[in-house]
Amino acid sequence: MPVLLAPGQAAPLDRLLAEANTVGIDCKPLPAPASAVPHPLIRGLGSLSAAGPEEISFLSNPRLQAQLADCRAAAVILTPAVWEAIRGSDPAFLPVLCSEPYLLYALVAQWFDHHRLEGLPQGIHPSAVIAGSAELEEGVNIGPHCVVEEGVRIGRGSRLGPGCVIGAGSTLGRDCLLHARVTLYHGVTVGDRAILHTGCVLGADGFGFAPDPRTAGAWAKIAQLGGVVLGDDVEIGANTTVDRGALDDTVLGNGVKLDNQIMIAHNCRVGDHTAMAACVGVAGSTIIGKRCTLAGAAMTAGHLTLGDDVHISGATAVTSSIHKPGRYTGVFPYSEHSEWQRNAAVLPQLGALRRRLRTLERQRPQGLAGDQE
Amino acid sequence: MPVLLAPGQAAPLDRLLAEANTVGIDCKPLPAPASAVPHPLIRGLGSLSAAGPEEISFLSNPRLQAQLADCRAAAVILTPAVWEAIRGSDPAFLPVLCSEPYLLYALVAQWFDHHRLEGLPQGIHPSAVIAGSAELEEGVNIGPHCVVEEGVRIGRGSRLGPGCVIGAGSTLGRDCLLHARVTLYHGVTVGDRAILHTGCVLGADGFGFAPDPRTAGAWAKIAQLGGVVLGDDVEIGANTTVDRGALDDTVLGNGVKLDNQIMIAHNCRVGDHTAMAACVGVAGSTIIGKRCTLAGAAMTAGHLTLGDDVHISGATAVTSSIHKPGRYTGVFPYSEHSEWQRNAAVLPQLGALRRRLRTLERQRPQGLAGDQE
Amino acid sequence: MPVLLAPGQAAPLDRLLAEANTVGIDCKPLPAPASAVPHPLIRGLGSLSAAGPEEISFLSNPRLQAQLADCRAAAVILTPAVWEAIRGSDPAFLPVLCSEPYLLYALVAQWFDHHRLEGLPQGIHPSAVIAGSAELEEGVNIGPHCVVEEGVRIGRGSRLGPGCVIGAGSTLGRDCLLHARVTLYHGVTVGDRAILHTGCVLGADGFGFAPDPRTAGAWAKIAQLGGVVLGDDVEIGANTTVDRGALDDTVLGNGVKLDNQIMIAHNCRVGDHTAMAACVGVAGSTIIGKRCTLAGAAMTAGHLTLGDDVHISGATAVTSSIHKPGRYTGVFPYSEHSEWQRNAAVLPQLGALRRRLRTLERQRPQGLAGDQE
Repeated sequence: MPVLLAPGQAAPLDRLLAEANTVGIDCKPLPAPASAVPHPLIRGLGSLSAAGPEEISFLSNPRLQAQLADCRAAAVILTPAVWEAIRGSDPAFLPVLCSEPYLLYALVAQWFDHHRLEGLPQGIHPSAVIAGSAELEEGVNIGPHCVVEEGVRIGRGSRLGPGCVIGAGSTLGRDCLLHARVTLYHGVTVGDRAILHTGCVLGADGFGFAPDPRTAGAWAKIAQLGGVVLGDDVEIGANTTVDRGALDDTVLGNGVKLDNQIMIAHNCRVGDHTAMAACVGVAGSTIIGKRCTLAGAAMTAGHLTLGDDVHISGATAVTSSIHKPGRYTGVFPYSEHSEWQRNAAVLPQLGALRRRLRTLERQRPQGLAGDQE
Repeated sequence: MPVLLAPGQAAPLDRLLAEANTVGIDCKPLPAPASAVPHPLIRGLGSLSAAGPEEISFLSNPRLQAQLADCRAAAVILTPAVWEAIRGSDPAFLPVLCSEPYLLYALVAQWFDHHRLEGLPQGIHPSAVIAGSAELEEGVNIGPHCVVEEGVRIGRGSRLGPGCVIGAGSTLGRDCLLHARVTLYHGVTVGDRAILHTGCVLGADGFGFAPDPRTAGAWAKIAQLGGVVLGDDVEIGANTTVDRGALDDTVLGNGVKLDNQIMIAHNCRVGDHTAMAACVGVAGSTIIGKRCTLAGAAMTAGHLTLGDDVHISGATAVTSSIHKPGRYTGVFPYSEHSEWQRNAAVLPQLGALRRRLRTLERQRPQGLAGDQE
Repeated sequence: MPVLLAPGQAAPLDRLLAEANTVGIDCKPLPAPASAVPHPLIRGLGSLSAAGPEEISFLSNPRLQAQLADCRAAAVILTPAVWEAIRGSDPAFLPVLCSEPYLLYALVAQWFDHHRLEGLPQGIHPSAVIAGSAELEEGVNIGPHCVVEEGVRIGRGSRLGPGCVIGAGSTLGRDCLLHARVTLYHGVTVGDRAILHTGCVLGADGFGFAPDPRTAGAWAKIAQLGGVVLGDDVEIGANTTVDRGALDDTVLGNGVKLDNQIMIAHNCRVGDHTAMAACVGVAGSTIIGKRCTLAGAAMTAGHLTLGDDVHISGATAVTSSIHKPGRYTGVFPYSEHSEWQRNAAVLPQLGALRRRLRTLERQRPQGLAGDQE
């Protein structure tokens, strides 16, 4: 991704959009309305309500269209349809037309963040402890107090924030970004361009125990000999954990995105481009297809299969396999506490209610009912 | 908060209570009963059943009143009402009357803990890596293996435990206590007197992706350019995560208290004095008012508004905005597994049951029913 | 546990089984079938489908019996009953009979993992910061960037991975294995043979606050003066937190096994050999008996008592004490979203439905009903 801004500089909007064109985003500035600056310099990116006169903003949700009237941004990314609807209003910003405003916003935000990353310290910090057999390709940056164990390989351009630990024999691809205090146990394989956030742990032992009849109630540990394998372009959130497999590997496909505080148990396999929001838990040996989404705090039992394009609502517990694409939900509706008490008290009687209803149905006066039909 | 105890010393009770008076707590010792020591020295604080003869205890829950008979503590904090009820019993402890026994207990416990903190190492540990442009006010303590990046400012009297990472440009107020391995990303602002526990992460990227139509099913990362802003007197538990905003900041107000393993997503705003118990998740852009409480494992969807003084029960999923103060609940009642199976099997038929009931109501013999009315 | 393999070596199967016999596991190889190698060398352990000709595998689940036909492993651990069923098939592997195949698998896996551990660096890394008053027994290994504070004691043979922090006055027993970045606050006691995974935090402050009437809505911190005490043979997963007690200790008994991202709040007591899967939360002061299991994402309220041998299903919220052994469940069944919407809409009417049903029951024509009985 090209870097457009040097410190203290501003980027000409025209150049930002030309860069977007080169990566396949169709976008173009319109002629400036009377009140707008024709070729503005851009120093930042802001929401419609907060962006100032040296910033660019965007409108992807048509319901926010009314905010355009007061927008002070230098330029706003819009769909052609929105522009048609407001063009008579002579806005004070330069309109940028794009069929995918949200995507263009994402790319512009990446440029600004990349610019920040370029300013970070380069090289290997002297306090890092790096094993003799570790292989670091050129352009690898290692922060203070990192530990890189024997046999590790780290690809060109990858960056480790302070306090990361890369266990023996693990592999990082190219252009990975590990924030502070990421931990990989031994034998973990990460593809290219991974983004791993603070506190995430890849490769801790899966939860495996055998009842040990030699001591009443005791558990014998099943050492976890498998690994963890991540595809390319995976992002993993803060304090998320992905356990190593018992014998085979736990696998996350290309483009998988995991939010914070997610738990992926041992032996799971997650298909390409599947995304999970925070606090999701996936129990052991469950296989999840491609392009699925699991909303926040959803949970799945173990040893299930979820097919491609399955979407699980937040706070839903999935207790059986799902083979048909679609959206699935299982949330107990909340209400005021006293109302919940009244209704929840009926739940333990549901079976009995159904029986009573059936009894009534059998007892209804057949002659009279027949007369009514 | 004054420190009363030097190592190996004991504090006279009279002095402890005088200190409490100076911070606005109304409390006083009574004349010692015949079996009690009049001006005891206090070395510790214990529960009614565990406190020994050099310790102080407290009774805030009247249901535990029977435990007073066997209490061995030197002194017990009581309400005047409790004292009225037991004064004829000639207890073996010195009664301390206080209208808020639980609050006085809190303050005494703080004194004892503060005493421990005063004994910890002072100064900047030589293994800490501190950027040249970081500004540390006087009396700042930095533990081993900490990393303080460029442009950080840390206020007077703040303490960082071992292995903390403070990202570039972040700010800590005065008298903050960061336990071991706290991480602030870049651009995080923390007020005065914060207490941050091990493993908490402030400022990791919010979970923002745009569908990328250039690759089927793929996600384009939306770089998160906002920050995190915490008010004064905030406490954040172990392994809790507060993500940075997408464009604007994620904000926690003054006096917010978060327990362990909580997730606050990007762009959320939490009002003053709101408290959340462990394992709560708040999805992105949700705004929570002042003085709310969310009990353990409660969850909220994103883009909601919860007004002031809203109280959410444990394990409740909040899926819509709440504007009226009060308590809200949505928990599926548990039962023995076989009973749950019987009742849960009826849930997918609820709509059908309602229809069958309506049919019966329409079919009931009007004449006969009329006769009964 | 004996170590059988040196690097690059293979272990004779006969020796592996003899070692198992010495620790009380009843197992023996059968005479080799015509197509199998009689005394194979073993280099690894694999699943029935993945194990190669120098590996051992096992069959504990009879439903996988069909996979034996294509198994390429050198040896397979079987029950005598399975062997009876397939012995006529002349398998290509050497059968090992064992009444507890899963337990023998667990032990063999431990041997292989132990072999890996033996290859890790020995001794105290020079970057570790160890207080002068800390007492380390012989054979203690301390990884890079660890911090061991004043008054800590660590028992013989214990190993700390990189970046661990052991707070002042804490104690570790013998042969403990702490993976990278484990944190113990001050005053935490851990028994022998503990396994603690990355990011777990023992002894952070419990969540205790008293309403402070001096400021409307504000909370006064109750300093947490108790500790955490773990028995022997405890395993704690990645990013799990066990808070210190308010006045007394939080206690986990012998053989307790906690998976990742679990939260044990202050003052809890968990009985021997109780196991909890990932994402479980146990609120404060709850007491859990021996040999209980809590499946993934189960939650308990505070101040409850769960007796011995209580088993909680996944995603179940336990809101009252349970004294009778057995399995308990409270999960809202999921379904396709549109079906869930239809049925969930009836939940707020359950009380009303019950009343309507009762009305119908009262209104049914007594004469006619009587005729039908």
